[in-house]
Amino acid sequence: MLLRNCRLVVTWSEDGSPRILENVDIRIRDNKIEEIGRDLNKETGEEEIDCSRRIVLPGIVNAHTHSPMVMLRGYCDDLELHEWLSRVWEVERHLDERLIELGSELAIIEMLSTGTTAFIDMYFYPHITAQVAKKYGIRAFLSPPFIEVLISSDKCLKELEDFIRTYSGDRLVKPIVNVHSIYTCSIECVKRAHEIAIENRLIMHIHVSETRKEVYECKKKYGKFPVELLYDIGVLSENTHLVHLGWVTSREIELIRETGASVTHCPVSNMKLATAGFFPFYEMMMQGIRVTIGTDGAASNNCLDMFREMKTAVLLQRNNYWDTRIKASHVLKAATLNGYRVLRIDGGDIGPGKIADLVMLDLDSIYLQPIREDNLISNIVYSATGRDVSMVIIDGRVVYDRERDLERWRERAREIREELNRFIEKFVQAHR
Amino acid sequence: MLLRNCRLVVTWSEDGSPRILENVDIRIRDNKIEEIGRDLNKETGEEEIDCSRRIVLPGIVNAHTHSPMVMLRGYCDDLELHEWLSRVWEVERHLDERLIELGSELAIIEMLSTGTTAFIDMYFYPHITAQVAKKYGIRAFLSPPFIEVLISSDKCLKELEDFIRTYSGDRLVKPIVNVHSIYTCSIECVKRAHEIAIENRLIMHIHVSETRKEVYECKKKYGKFPVELLYDIGVLSENTHLVHLGWVTSREIELIRETGASVTHCPVSNMKLATAGFFPFYEMMMQGIRVTIGTDGAASNNCLDMFREMKTAVLLQRNNYWDTRIKASHVLKAATLNGYRVLRIDGGDIGPGKIADLVMLDLDSIYLQPIREDNLISNIVYSATGRDVSMVIIDGRVVYDRERDLERWRERAREIREELNRFIEKFVQAHR
Repeated sequence: MLLRNCRLVVTWSEDGSPRILENVDIRIRDNKIEEIGRDLNKETGEEEIDCSRRIVLPGIVNAHTHSPMVMLRGYCDDLELHEWLSRVWEVERHLDERLIELGSELAIIEMLSTGTTAFIDMYFYPHITAQVAKKYGIRAFLSPPFIEVLISSDKCLKELEDFIRTYSGDRLVKPIVNVHSIYTCSIECVKRAHEIAIENRLIMHIHVSETRKEVYECKKKYGKFPVELLYDIGVLSENTHLVHLGWVTSREIELIRETGASVTHCPVSNMKLATAGFFPFYEMMMQGIRVTIGTDGAASNNCLDMFREMKTAVLLQRNNYWDTRIKASHVLKAATLNGYRVLRIDGGDIGPGKIADLVMLDLDSIYLQPIREDNLISNIVYSATGRDVSMVIIDGRVVYDRERDLERWRERAREIREELNRFIEKFVQAHR
Repeated sequence: MLLRNCRLVVTWSEDGSPRILENVDIRIRDNKIEEIGRDLNKETGEEEIDCSRRIVLPGIVNAHTHSPMVMLRGYCDDLELHEWLSRVWEVERHLDERLIELGSELAIIEMLSTGTTAFIDMYFYPHITAQVAKKYGIRAFLSPPFIEVLISSDKCLKELEDFIRTYSGDRLVKPIVNVHSIYTCSIECVKRAHEIAIENRLIMHIHVSETRKEVYECKKKYGKFPVELLYDIGVLSENTHLVHLGWVTSREIELIRETGASVTHCPVSNMKLATAGFFPFYEMMMQGIRVTIGTDGAASNNCLDMFREMKTAVLLQRNNYWDTRIKASHVLKAATLNGYRVLRIDGGDIGPGKIADLVMLDLDSIYLQPIREDNLISNIVYSATGRDVSMVIIDGRVVYDRERDLERWRERAREIREELNRFIEKFVQAHR
């Protein structure tokens, strides 16, 4: 496949700063970028895509979400975290595979059409989400979650082993090890989960230090801060992926750096659920920790658009630091290059040999003008939304083309609405 | 005009809470809503618009912007306020009427197509912006600004008098009195400006307490906090419209309440410029002060989408208060009903006799699903963006119809880009 005459292309320099290419061709062979240059010769049988009115970005990773929860968008909104969570758990007891399928499909339609190429997911019935992801061609990193307050860890363990067997070797769907949190799982469970992650070389994905309540109760129960606890029980490693970290100490940041764990910032969800705190983006970035960005579930965000998330990340960080030390390029790098590093895929950047996961923005969008090379990164982060995405390529395949797919997906979303709302309205009536 | 079978309609109850109507017809005669009901009879010659796949909202007021600054979107980004301002002023000395026309047009295209029905503007050459506003049919509240560090107040005064004469009685363009700030104007100038506002029954629109620097210098120079100073020199009244207020004391909130002045919150711009502080939304709302929302200019935001602004307002406030006391409905009311109250137009609500300024959202947008009556307000504020707007009616006229206008406006935005970038690139080269 030949992406002809790409108007503006965002790549990353060795030193981590953005490097913009103008008017280049990009050749994709199989699932990789083969070469980049001016006026490449078209090879026989090669498909050519005109990119003269497109901006080409590396793939974008939503590093923390609960995709099927899009079905609960706007449900019981405007509550604080722990109250909201108990209301949500009430509904979740009634979910079935069909509802998960609908939620997953709606979420994947939203993510793909707003430029997400891969997502790290934590939810029930992950085999259903995995099937939908394969159908649409998006990269999904997921597994049945350990959440002992709801499901016995033996049951989860069995399901996880099945899941790992089923998806080992899949191109798009990759197993991880999901652990809800230290307040819903025992130490033994977390340790067992981390062992499985190490044995199978998988990511262990866990919520940590999201609320003051969590930190307070951890300190009371274990005499330690949450990240300290994870370190002391031996589950902090290069395989560990920590989400939220709104209430961490400098000592805990040091432990993350020391062990090579990675982290995800979910600014919108944290703000919306009023968890307050301060994700120490700058300190972590300066220590070389892989900082990534996630939307969290649509039930607490309430959208899955990574462009909106990137902007809010900068805004929140500047509000916290009282200065502009966090720049647009930092969050764009977190969402692309760092995301792919966490996934252990050589992507999130554009260059020969990189995986062919690309997001294209419409150069002529009203909302990006007047766009130029010198304001490109700013306008991507502060002005664009996912609605400016005109095409998404994953693993060398065009999985979203706005002209081809948007109207059809819109119609599909309408059908999904009808079915989901029948369930939710019935549930609400029964539980009044 | 008959809006037939509006699927969901947002109106405001007497007590200020939202009241949702389902499947109603709305009749518009001239520039007002005449009646709302089920199965209204179509009158001879009446135009009918099918609204069965639309959500109808009251008009939305962008209560503080500098619309032509969209031309500087992404220019010198990532600086803090006072440094950024000096770089921007450097370019602004070279602006001419043509550039203002292009900037105004790009801004108005963006605002209308994202659901803004009226805006309060502060910038140079307002007669140009006014002409573009009339051409597109959007309500504009503007005037030449008093900014003594750049323009003598005599010159501004003359221009203001001309402007008031020209636009008194205009249906869409209304003069206001723009005063940049107490750090760019003398006390005498601010007092004179307020007198003109009172004499002509106009809004006096002024930036106040945006940064710590401003507050510190005001306290040093005058021995008073900025709002206190305005009160003591007699310019705080029902006509006064105060913007930003990131650093105000309880005493100042009390003075605003006492005098009936109105206020605007610009969360994105404040966060992006790292002015920090805390706009006391809840305290002001509880005291009955008219709180409104504004995007500020696109050079500091960098977008003019009021839906994105509403969401960020909730997020920032929750991050400040560490709880969820600010709800989606509060900011929606601030952007609609309160906005129109500040403009002294009986709108921002939907009911017989109200002005016919309406914003319609696409009910079938992927990003709002699964939408229902009970999650409508949440999904409007947290999930929608201006891109979900499918139609805008102002003063009883359809001024934006996505199917009719979007593609054409996109083409126009592209042309504007070419011309603006020629100027900016030349400027940057000359000032390297």
